[in-house]
Amino acid sequence: MSHAPLSATALQVRLEALARFTDVPGEMTRLTLSPAHKAAAGEVARWFAAAGMAVHLDATGSVVGRYEGTRPDAPALIIGSHIDTVRNAGIYDGNLGVVVGLAVVEELNRTNTRLPFPIEVFAFADEEGVRFPSTLTSSRALAGRFDPATLEHRDADGISRREALIAFGVDPAAIATASRAEDARAYVEVHIEQGPVLEKLGLPLGIVTAIAGATRAQVRVSGEAGHSGTLPMELRHDALAGAAEMVLAAEKRAQGEPGLVATVGTLSMPGGAVNVVPGAVQFSLDVRAPDDPQRNRAFADIEARCREIAAARGLCVTLEVGYDAAAAPCDAGLQAALAEAVADVGAPVHHLPSGAGHDGLSLNGVMPIAMLFVRSTNGSHNPREHAAADDIALAAQALHACVLWLAAA
Amino acid sequence: MSHAPLSATALQVRLEALARFTDVPGEMTRLTLSPAHKAAAGEVARWFAAAGMAVHLDATGSVVGRYEGTRPDAPALIIGSHIDTVRNAGIYDGNLGVVVGLAVVEELNRTNTRLPFPIEVFAFADEEGVRFPSTLTSSRALAGRFDPATLEHRDADGISRREALIAFGVDPAAIATASRAEDARAYVEVHIEQGPVLEKLGLPLGIVTAIAGATRAQVRVSGEAGHSGTLPMELRHDALAGAAEMVLAAEKRAQGEPGLVATVGTLSMPGGAVNVVPGAVQFSLDVRAPDDPQRNRAFADIEARCREIAAARGLCVTLEVGYDAAAAPCDAGLQAALAEAVADVGAPVHHLPSGAGHDGLSLNGVMPIAMLFVRSTNGSHNPREHAAADDIALAAQALHACVLWLAAA
Repeated sequence: MSHAPLSATALQVRLEALARFTDVPGEMTRLTLSPAHKAAAGEVARWFAAAGMAVHLDATGSVVGRYEGTRPDAPALIIGSHIDTVRNAGIYDGNLGVVVGLAVVEELNRTNTRLPFPIEVFAFADEEGVRFPSTLTSSRALAGRFDPATLEHRDADGISRREALIAFGVDPAAIATASRAEDARAYVEVHIEQGPVLEKLGLPLGIVTAIAGATRAQVRVSGEAGHSGTLPMELRHDALAGAAEMVLAAEKRAQGEPGLVATVGTLSMPGGAVNVVPGAVQFSLDVRAPDDPQRNRAFADIEARCREIAAARGLCVTLEVGYDAAAAPCDAGLQAALAEAVADVGAPVHHLPSGAGHDGLSLNGVMPIAMLFVRSTNGSHNPREHAAADDIALAAQALHACVLWLAAA
Repeated sequence: MSHAPLSATALQVRLEALARFTDVPGEMTRLTLSPAHKAAAGEVARWFAAAGMAVHLDATGSVVGRYEGTRPDAPALIIGSHIDTVRNAGIYDGNLGVVVGLAVVEELNRTNTRLPFPIEVFAFADEEGVRFPSTLTSSRALAGRFDPATLEHRDADGISRREALIAFGVDPAAIATASRAEDARAYVEVHIEQGPVLEKLGLPLGIVTAIAGATRAQVRVSGEAGHSGTLPMELRHDALAGAAEMVLAAEKRAQGEPGLVATVGTLSMPGGAVNVVPGAVQFSLDVRAPDDPQRNRAFADIEARCREIAAARGLCVTLEVGYDAAAAPCDAGLQAALAEAVADVGAPVHHLPSGAGHDGLSLNGVMPIAMLFVRSTNGSHNPREHAAADDIALAAQALHACVLWLAAA
């Protein structure tokens, strides 16, 4: 007996079926272009085909299913997410969005519904960025922004992305012409929130306002090492005490501004010892905000505070920005369509930014993007990440309603 | 041509001669009971004998020279320091005190001076605690406080202290009876300051009031890890931000109380990553003071602040004390004798605590102890540590004067 495609049971069955494809038995590990990824892509392709879609693998290894509309030359609505995972992942991150997109098409197909535009469901091959030192290559190719240099990036075993793509059965040379920038109507992704906001608010769904931009820097603080017993407090230039003030300054600057976050996630002390006044410390700084000027102001303020703290303590500080990505605002019209759809399925309408990065970042400026978040618990990137089947079904029903709403508009 | 034993030149020549004994050519590395240590001990024994002393190796490997007084049964004045070093050390730490003690006896011998008590010069074998996971074993044996369990401690090559002692040519079984607690008048040590206090004050010598006690703890802070992008500031339980507050609380508590120091010398974040809100941090805490109640109050206050900070942030904190050593106050009478002597040689009299540990710690309560510090630059335990030859000569002259003053008292 089969369930209606948008039912909680059907979606849960699909997610669990997809979760069986793992490179490490007993856990969910499906790094991009791995054997488990290849097997999962094959299964997804079969599901896509059974839902009435024309299926192919694109040149980056993504599975693409096309459900024709009544006007074949109309730009396609792209619904996507990724089926690669981190190591020892949960089963929802990425996979959920693909399963939901598939279910929407299954429901259209089941009800013999044709829209005035085609739908393409993408199961992106490379979002997590765990295997190779580059990421979002599938969506970047879609946007016509693929960097060929990433073909030479190598994994821990020395295998290049180029070699891995060929082993996966696709042609790296074709990536250059994989852009869909000219014939896509919009990009919509359903994803678990990966954060506690919806859970705390008791809401099943959230409409994303923007994917946050991020600035990451390595901060190096140097002072003067000394003997912890013989160096009086007033003569110290303690790099760790200075860094501690900087950590608190970053935290304080980010507090009280919705959407803004600042995190020191790593701190190390080369040459540190129990009985040595720290001479050198380095730490990472990660500042994110849905609004670029907001992020830039916050980063500049934190940098200025770091310099003040260093000056007051007789320390040296350098900040080296290693990553700086603009925010990707979600399209207002698509947000409005999602809001209508969320209300249609009886859920409260709530907007929130995405602090995590997603494939929509790659598409920003190339086509309108939108995201629908599903309440999740226990964060993400760990086996405990969870989304309730009822919430997932609500998301699928909302996406279905949104698609119909766009078709009628 | 030879110089008077207490001259700057004679002392400098000796220090440089002793510095030739190293296990690593090109640097000063003489770990306890190593081949270089054995060779250095042999040379020191020859120097001691040439100065009119009866010489033997004690059961811990220390070179002991005895310069008889007019009353052979009078308790001996012990002058000592150590000739083991850390890796890539300077040439002054430890060695200076032995060379100065020797010079005082050479001067007594040169001038045919016999005191009413014997002098014994000790070149301790084991003070730095680098090779084995235990330290001060030579002075602990002298105090009758040797822990036989330390004979089984092994170095990085798997050699036990017992085996190293036998290879050095001494009998570990005899350590049990090496105590001189009953027949020693006092212990006096000359040592470089290892800190910047005398240098900042422009003073060549300092009389130590006490060797600081120390409490060392490992502090573990645990919060809740999370995604740096998706976890809003107000929902975080950031272990690093909490630890940063604790680091600053320790620093603040120690400021403004002379002699008190508090240091966080190591901090680590297992599982930390640039894009993860820190879930766990651990750091070391080292609190020292010349006065035990002062140290205990400071440690208790810092511990209480850590608990307050953790409670306010929804973190857990544990403090595990791994080392707790009482301060060793220097004898008031010996401090007065050193003050007379320092004034005699024309130097300003200044008292200061020793934040670093020394062999006197082992002897505390067993015999009166005293220490004379020589101004030094660039700290210690590195090749740049330095004491000026003129300052060393002034210390030798002061110790000589002190010995005569004690003899006349």
